Amino acid sequence: MMARAWTLTSRPQGLPTMDNFALVDLPARDLNDGEVRIANTWLSVDPYMRGRMNDVKSYTPPFELDQPMQGGAIGTVVESRSDRFKQGDTVQHFAGWRDEAILPADQVQALPQLDVDPQAFLGQLGMPGMTAYFGLLEVAGAKEGDTVFVSAAAGAVGSTVVQIAKAKGCHVIGSAGGADKCAWVQSLGADAVIDYKSGTPVVKALGEVARNGIDVYFDNVGGDHLDAALAHGNLHARFAICGMIDVYNSAKPTELRYLARLIGMRMRIQGFIVSDYMDRAGEFYRDMGGWLKDGKLKRNETVFDGLESTPDAFLGLFSGGNTGKMLVRV
Amino acid sequence: MMARAWTLTSRPQGLPTMDNFALVDLPARDLNDGEVRIANTWLSVDPYMRGRMNDVKSYTPPFELDQPMQGGAIGTVVESRSDRFKQGDTVQHFAGWRDEAILPADQVQALPQLDVDPQAFLGQLGMPGMTAYFGLLEVAGAKEGDTVFVSAAAGAVGSTVVQIAKAKGCHVIGSAGGADKCAWVQSLGADAVIDYKSGTPVVKALGEVARNGIDVYFDNVGGDHLDAALAHGNLHARFAICGMIDVYNSAKPTELRYLARLIGMRMRIQGFIVSDYMDRAGEFYRDMGGWLKDGKLKRNETVFDGLESTPDAFLGLFSGGNTGKMLVRV
Repeated sequence: MMARAWTLTSRPQGLPTMDNFALVDLPARDLNDGEVRIANTWLSVDPYMRGRMNDVKSYTPPFELDQPMQGGAIGTVVESRSDRFKQGDTVQHFAGWRDEAILPADQVQALPQLDVDPQAFLGQLGMPGMTAYFGLLEVAGAKEGDTVFVSAAAGAVGSTVVQIAKAKGCHVIGSAGGADKCAWVQSLGADAVIDYKSGTPVVKALGEVARNGIDVYFDNVGGDHLDAALAHGNLHARFAICGMIDVYNSAKPTELRYLARLIGMRMRIQGFIVSDYMDRAGEFYRDMGGWLKDGKLKRNETVFDGLESTPDAFLGLFSGGNTGKMLVRV
Repeated sequence: MMARAWTLTSRPQGLPTMDNFALVDLPARDLNDGEVRIANTWLSVDPYMRGRMNDVKSYTPPFELDQPMQGGAIGTVVESRSDRFKQGDTVQHFAGWRDEAILPADQVQALPQLDVDPQAFLGQLGMPGMTAYFGLLEVAGAKEGDTVFVSAAAGAVGSTVVQIAKAKGCHVIGSAGGADKCAWVQSLGADAVIDYKSGTPVVKALGEVARNGIDVYFDNVGGDHLDAALAHGNLHARFAICGMIDVYNSAKPTELRYLARLIGMRMRIQGFIVSDYMDRAGEFYRDMGGWLKDGKLKRNETVFDGLESTPDAFLGLFSGGNTGKMLVRV
């Protein structure tokens, strides 16, 4: 059977549809010296990929039209012309959105030595987990006793923020959509959970549970959640902005009613990209490994089966379709 | 003649009107031990005072209804029962909005030893100047070679930001309303000036003059200017938010179309209050004194005459009525 990959055939306006994607055959070819052939077993879909579908200069280049898209992936080496990997090795790399990847060995990494399922390295122990870790502890500087508010708290990043914040002695308020997700966030140790689908405006719901305000906001969504955090931010509150899932597909501006509170409360809003912290991955694996052993880290996955389902999994990110990490099992 | 003071008779919704204010007689009384009587000569009106007219907890308490309002003032000691001041001394204090103030001596300051008109200590060499100095250099961390964008660049704070930024070797873009103000900002050394009243959207006008983006934004107004700065912010751009004159009187939310650029560009937005830097006033006077001697600081004043005109002067702040510092000469 031929290897296949998803390509972007046109640039979406607003929310992408299936018409923006095509599943194409990849030309078969032999390996060159130094290359490995990987049969992918797990593919990651992540909100940041929406940004790469636009033709604008950003921190990662746009996806090229009619070329295989990229993304995190886990796979098994099935053929190697590098002495760094041998057949049967389980590896991670960024040639996702396809069932088979041919890569130079220096673009392939062995999995860290932690006792978890390999797909965890696409989520809590991978880029989403590092986003949670460095965003919460470095960018927002969360410390013991802080009240931390996190949006999309049932997602891959947010659920890890909740648990790291609890491990660090913070008071944690999460927001998620629907009773099942809220129950899961509560089970992770959150002190309070807001259901943003309940009909109560977020700013009101947050005010009811954050009687003493919030010191840290970890933003995955933007919009109403960001405004609510501005409304309830304490003196010197710090906001780590890692994603704005409400904004990516919207042509509407973000409306903020409480922005001027920034001034009197001396609040700080800081955008960040996890890749800036890659050289500090050792700290992340050390701390996360410890919390794993202590049983302090739970995770959840929403799994779509088959390469064909990849765009559906991706689109599900924007309709709240996942609890925990959204994954495709090839 | 009896001493008089302006009081707030009701809390304004949106833009204040004359109906919110009343000019009342102050009860005559003798001084107590340790007090001084000051005949005010100059009164300051500043945008932050709008915030004190609302009944909300903030960094300064709300003005009390039917009590004399406060604000920066310069005056002459006409009677003293303190050994710290004698008749004829020129002093500054915060019992503004009135023609005569009775204060304990520890709430009165002698003027710093700089060779300028006394009213300069209400503007460029006072709180607005310190706001410019610490906001630009500390909060935003502006350094040589940075492109600095400043809104309300013809105002008391903004015009000082322009000149400090030039003194520090920055490339400076100012925004002001109307040809006269723009010409003045240009005369202060700004490399480019945007006329926000020209009809061209700020985001477009800024893009035309900031071909290499901006590294620092000093925000006095919020709204469209903030959004334009987000649209053109460079990697690691820093925004110092000191005022949002467009927002104070508006019930409408701020609409931001470019907020998500925060993430990819790792931008930082930091609110601040100048009073946090009061213990570092020595640095400010030292540097400003040097620039004054070197002829690097120009200033302008818009003067209303008579205590009766104080609310008009205050309201003029929100209609762009001032070039440089807005003052009342009693």
